[in-house]
This record gives sequence, C-alpha cells and structure tokens, in this order.
Amino acid sequence: MDSTDVIAYMNRVGAAARGAAAAMAAASTAAKNQALSLLAAKLEAHRPLLAAANQLDLDRAAANGLEGPLLDRLKLDAKSLATVAEGCVQLAAMPDPIGEILNVRRRPTGISVGQMRVPLGVFGMIYESRPNVTIEAASLAIKSGNACILRGGSEAINSNVALARLVREALLEAGLPADGVQLVETTDRAAVGRLIAMPEFVDVIIPRGGKGLIERISAEAKVPVIKHLDGNCHTYVDAEFDLEQALVVTDNAKTQKYSPCNATESLLVHRDAAMAFLPRIGEIFARKSVEMRCDAAAKAILADVPGAKVVDAVESDWSEEYLAPIISVKVVADLDEAIAHINRYSSHHTEAILTTNHPNAMRFLREVDSASVMVNASTRFADGFEYGLGAEIGISTDKFHARGPVGLEGLTSLKYIVLGQGEIRR
Amino acid sequence: MDSTDVIAYMNRVGAAARGAAAAMAAASTAAKNQALSLLAAKLEAHRPLLAAANQLDLDRAAANGLEGPLLDRLKLDAKSLATVAEGCVQLAAMPDPIGEILNVRRRPTGISVGQMRVPLGVFGMIYESRPNVTIEAASLAIKSGNACILRGGSEAINSNVALARLVREALLEAGLPADGVQLVETTDRAAVGRLIAMPEFVDVIIPRGGKGLIERISAEAKVPVIKHLDGNCHTYVDAEFDLEQALVVTDNAKTQKYSPCNATESLLVHRDAAMAFLPRIGEIFARKSVEMRCDAAAKAILADVPGAKVVDAVESDWSEEYLAPIISVKVVADLDEAIAHINRYSSHHTEAILTTNHPNAMRFLREVDSASVMVNASTRFADGFEYGLGAEIGISTDKFHARGPVGLEGLTSLKYIVLGQGEIRR
Repeated sequence: MDSTDVIAYMNRVGAAARGAAAAMAAASTAAKNQALSLLAAKLEAHRPLLAAANQLDLDRAAANGLEGPLLDRLKLDAKSLATVAEGCVQLAAMPDPIGEILNVRRRPTGISVGQMRVPLGVFGMIYESRPNVTIEAASLAIKSGNACILRGGSEAINSNVALARLVREALLEAGLPADGVQLVETTDRAAVGRLIAMPEFVDVIIPRGGKGLIERISAEAKVPVIKHLDGNCHTYVDAEFDLEQALVVTDNAKTQKYSPCNATESLLVHRDAAMAFLPRIGEIFARKSVEMRCDAAAKAILADVPGAKVVDAVESDWSEEYLAPIISVKVVADLDEAIAHINRYSSHHTEAILTTNHPNAMRFLREVDSASVMVNASTRFADGFEYGLGAEIGISTDKFHARGPVGLEGLTSLKYIVLGQGEIRR
Repeated sequence: MDSTDVIAYMNRVGAAARGAAAAMAAASTAAKNQALSLLAAKLEAHRPLLAAANQLDLDRAAANGLEGPLLDRLKLDAKSLATVAEGCVQLAAMPDPIGEILNVRRRPTGISVGQMRVPLGVFGMIYESRPNVTIEAASLAIKSGNACILRGGSEAINSNVALARLVREALLEAGLPADGVQLVETTDRAAVGRLIAMPEFVDVIIPRGGKGLIERISAEAKVPVIKHLDGNCHTYVDAEFDLEQALVVTDNAKTQKYSPCNATESLLVHRDAAMAFLPRIGEIFARKSVEMRCDAAAKAILADVPGAKVVDAVESDWSEEYLAPIISVKVVADLDEAIAHINRYSSHHTEAILTTNHPNAMRFLREVDSASVMVNASTRFADGFEYGLGAEIGISTDKFHARGPVGLEGLTSLKYIVLGQGEIRR
C-alpha cells in the first residue's frame, strides 16, 4: 500500500468501527459473555493453527536478529494461550459495567436525576509485539461494549491476524458485529498516524510501549490518550515505624522484580529513622547487589555496610526510573520534606509511606499527588488485578478521566438520565 | 507588553498557580468555606467600588458602540452582585468533595483498596465579558481545592480586576494563598495562546463562549479541554403517549426560552402519533410564531393549521441549533428510526422521549448517545442547578472525564489509596 491507500484503508476501518459501536453498546450481557466464552474455547481449540502463525513470526524475528526477552514476548505458547483464554472466562463471569444506574435522586421539581454507565464508543489500542495483548484488548472491548481497532507490533502480524480472526468468529457466532474488533492488517507506520487523528471514528487511544512512543502519540493525537509514562515510585520510611515490617516491605518494593513500573526506585528515610533503618536495608541491598545512589547523609551511614555499592546521587537520579537493581536513597528532615520531594520528582505513579503514626499516614494519603498512594504496603501492589478490577487495559499517570490502573470502568463514561412524569421548567 | 513579555508574564502566572495548588488541595474545609463567606461579604460591602470599576467598562463599551444584550451582560449591578454572593454562600454550605473516600474493599492479599477524591490541580477558565463568571469560577476553584487562572473578556477588564482583588483578599484572610485565584490582567490575545499550551502549569482548560472560539481553543490546546459545543436537542413523541402531557412538555422544551443550549431544536413524531399530536402542537407554535421546518409527512399535516409558518426542511435543518423560534419537525416510522436519527444528527447534548411504553423508554435511555437522556420531561431541565449539582462550571458535550453539566466533581479526580499492615507482593 502506498500512503494514500493506507489512509483510505484506515478510513474504512474507522467507519466500520463507528458503524459497529452502536450494536456493541446495545449488546445484551448474555451475548457479550457468550462471545467471550466462545473466544476462550476457540483459543484452546485452534492451538495448532495459532502455533503455526506464531512460528512464522518467530522465524522471521529470529532471522532479523531478534533475541532474548524481545523474542520471548513474541512467543504464543500453550501456557500464554491458556492464560489469555482464562482471562476471557473470568471477564465473562464479571458483572456487566454497562447499563449500571447510579445516584438517582428525586429533585424538588419532581424529576428524578441519575447517571447511567455507557461505553466510550471506539477505542484504538497501539501496542508492541506481544500477541496476548490482542486478546486482552479484544476481550475488554467486548465486555465494555466498545468497538476497538487494534494495532500491534509488526513482528507479531501473523499471530495477530490469526487471533483476530478467532475474535471475529466469536463475535459473529454470538450475534454481535465482527467489526466490533478489528485488527489493522497493514504494518505501514502511516496507519498509526491516521488512527490517532480521526476523532470522527475513534474516541480514545490507549498506547502501550516505550516512553518515547507514548510521548510521540500523545503529542500528535487528535483524541484523548489514556497514557502511562514512567513509574518513578517512592517508599518513605517515617520517624515512627515498625523496623522489621519496613525492611520486608522496602525489600519487596525494590527487589521482588526490577522491571515493573510499580517497583520502588527511590527510598526516602526520616532522619530519626536513618540510623536504625539504613544499615539493615543496606545489608539486604548489598546481598542482592542493588546499587544505592545516595545523598550525603545516607552515604555517611551506608558507606560502612560491608559489600554495599554506594554511589553519590546526582540531581537526575531523583527523577530516574531505573527498572534495574539500582535505588536512589535520601535522608529527609520530616514528612513535609518527604511529601515535597515526592510531589516534585515523582512521575505520579505510586508512592508508599511506612509509618505507625496515624496523622502522618493520613497526611501522606491526602497530600501526595500520585495515582496510587499507600500506607504500609509494597508499591508492587499498584496493579489492576491486585486492586480487584478484574482486568487491566493500562495504567494512567494522568489525572483526567481515569487515574491509576484502568479496568473496564475506564472504558466507560456516565451519561445523565432524567425520569419524569411530564414535568416542565418554570 | 510585547509578545515576549506576555509569554514571560503568563509563565509567572502559571508558576504561581502551580505553586499555590498544593496549599489549595490541602486546605481545610473550614478555611475554604471561610474564604467563600468572606468573599460574599466583600461583594456586598464593596458595591460602590465595584460599581465604579464596572462603570469604566460600561463607558468604554458604549463608546465603542456596544449595545443591547452585549452591554447587558457586562453590567454588574446590585442584583447580579447579590446573585453571585448568594452563590458563594450556597457553595460554602455544600459538602466538601475533596478527601471523600469511596469503594474501600479488602483484597485477598490483606490490603484494603479504595479511592480518594482530590482536586485536578490548576484549571484555566476562558470566558467572555460577563464579570459574574469571575466570581462563579473563583468560588468553584476555592471549594474544589483547585488553583485557577481566569481570562475574561477584555471589555470587562476593570470589573474583573476589582472582583479578583476581593477574591484574593478573602483567600489571604482565610489563610489560603492569594495565588489560588489569579486573573490574567493583560488583554493581549497572546495570553490565551500561552494559557492553553502550558501543561507544566495548567491541568485543564474550561472555555465559555461561541462555538468558533471553543473549536479554536480545542484544536490548539496542549491540555484537556472541558468543552461545550452546540445543543441540537431533540424531543421524540412515541406511538403510545399522553397527548395533553406531550403538548405541555414539547411547548416548554421549545418555547420557554429560545436561547438556552438545552432548548429543543428538533421534534420527531412517531407516524402513529402524528395525526393526533402535530395539529395540536402546530396550533401552539402558530400562536407563538414558531416556524416549523418540516419533512414531507409533517408538512402534509401541519400545512392546514391556521397561521402556521410551515417550511420545507433541508438536510442542514436536521443538524441546526436555531436558538430562535424555529423548530425542525420530522415524522418517523418507529423508535429505531428516531434513535438512529438522533444519534446521527444530534450534538449529543440532551434528548427526550415522551412515551407511556416502558420498554421504549428504557431502550431510549440506553441507546441514545447523548450527555442527558430524558423520559417524559422537558429538555430544558439539562442544567447543573436543576440536576442538584449545586453549581455549574460548564456543560460537557464530550464523553471523556465529565459528561453533561459539570459541577464540583468535574474539577476533581479519584486517586487510589491502599491501606496495608506490611503486606508484600508474592
């Protein structure tokens, strides 16, 4: 396709999505759940077909020199298929968010005013070469009554085409429009440029990928973007605290896994807690080869810990998302300094206070301006499944519309409903 | 100021707003309510000062040839001051939206997960020459814990400067930062261009004004915009209906006032209701000199009504917001056609069905894709005060974030809170 053809193709895809959106929105709960159950069954039944499609992608990727985690992410094996199929089954079992009626109140004029939850309409999902995201996004679209347009990474195109075909079969068999879920079948990059700039067809864009990609999409999009930039998460150890608990939680927040966006990247310690806490956590980090980038006060205490990798922090360390066995460490004078530091340097993703002081816990909850704020828990809990959302389409570091882990509700909006008996405005 | 100076000035205003936002967010309910009460008292106490400032604006406007409603809107008389002061008193009496904690649930891991309502941060308000909006926006900012930057029409600059000074005095006397509410004191248009393009200082823009202005702001803004475009509202009279009630409601929806955005602009009538309903409503419209732009079926019935102004509708009539004694009229075959017509031509503001049929009422509520959907009530009810929001900063015709009348909650967002006892992620 040349670029004119790509635009025309995307316009057709967009118009088809908009056309399917009304039927998706009006779909019965039973039909949506049936489509999800059928999809789960098809994913199991068509394993050989999916494996063959995936092998084409894997072979080409290997030929292009892809290796390690990048190649792993591309893999669609029996285990990952079983996981996404199980996700569809779980989603079918969840309550339908659409049609929920809330806050109905009688007004002095006689009318009753409330709100009804409805789908956003059409969402566009842009993601990298993880074919399982195709099913996750499609199943969330079905349950939330939205139409969606999926644009996966080009390395996974054969896998995604095979998966999308099963989704569309499941939709049709459940009496829903196949165009409720469409995959962009061209790998031309112009397709992304068009997808994010057609408000007449697409209501919201959800990108998943590196920070550079997401910043570019946000800058160029003509529709709202539910975006997740970085996760520079903080754990703050307060003056009054439970030492053994703080060690376990801080260790977990940093080292349980290094790569997730909710891992702690910066440790703040009250100066009255520093002498008791820092040498002990320093030992743990030393044993796990976690490098500590310290301010002067923290360095003075940590330098003596045997085997500790202690480095002077520079200004940029306070903003950095390492996603690696590195943590920045700072001693603060009080809770005010901790909150001010976090609100200045954090990416507004997730922050935790470890304290036994109730007023301080409440102030931290109120005043820290991040999507998730925790008391005495590991920042690693910031996750749609851990929060009980049932499914997660992404994490928003914005404040507008959805904030934090985004589940089915983030794909909906509330419209007002008014129930009258012939009332008029005076 | 030259344009470089304007940018530098707006950057100072922006930085001051961002600096004040944390204190506004953390402000106690008592301090916010005190600021509102003080402001109400000052508006009454300083009437002569405000009248003098307003007279400067009125004299210049008259000299520039402004007249009629435009001049009226600019007027800040005793009555309009009493109204905005009363608004401040009412807002002080409302519950504080900030700090509300919702949906706290214990998870299997032991953590409790909930949500806390917090301010958005800083909003920018761009409006025309109605000085009362300065107080409405400032008081909503105070109650919702946001900082705000106000940019009113240049014709009202002296009035706005005087009003903003009282707001800032009230903030200071209540122990809150004066920069919680700032007025842009230059009338240079470059200030608007900068205000809508500094995401580092401003979280959301709320424009009020003509459609052209709002479209331009939306196209150029680098932050989210809570926007209200037009109100092409529909009233649909179903096959089974209460004739006398339908006449009263339809009359009210169209003729109670012609200029509001929630007035009905298009009347749809089921073909089985047309012979009974159209001649009667046609008489009412004829008496009130409301022009009817009709499809062929409606025209055939209405043409015989004595004195009726009946005109052939053209395609563009179905999309038009008249804000005048004109209504488009169409006969439809069934509910499906009515819903399809509305979802195609409406501006997604407000639509009503007049019916005695329950399944049809429920389908209309579910399937009509507008911010407000009503059964047996006048579309004129679509309003923040009528809905019980207590105050209205605008009406959103978007689906993202806030939809329909936007009150205090539209200026807030929900962050997740996690309460633990040392839990870690396994």
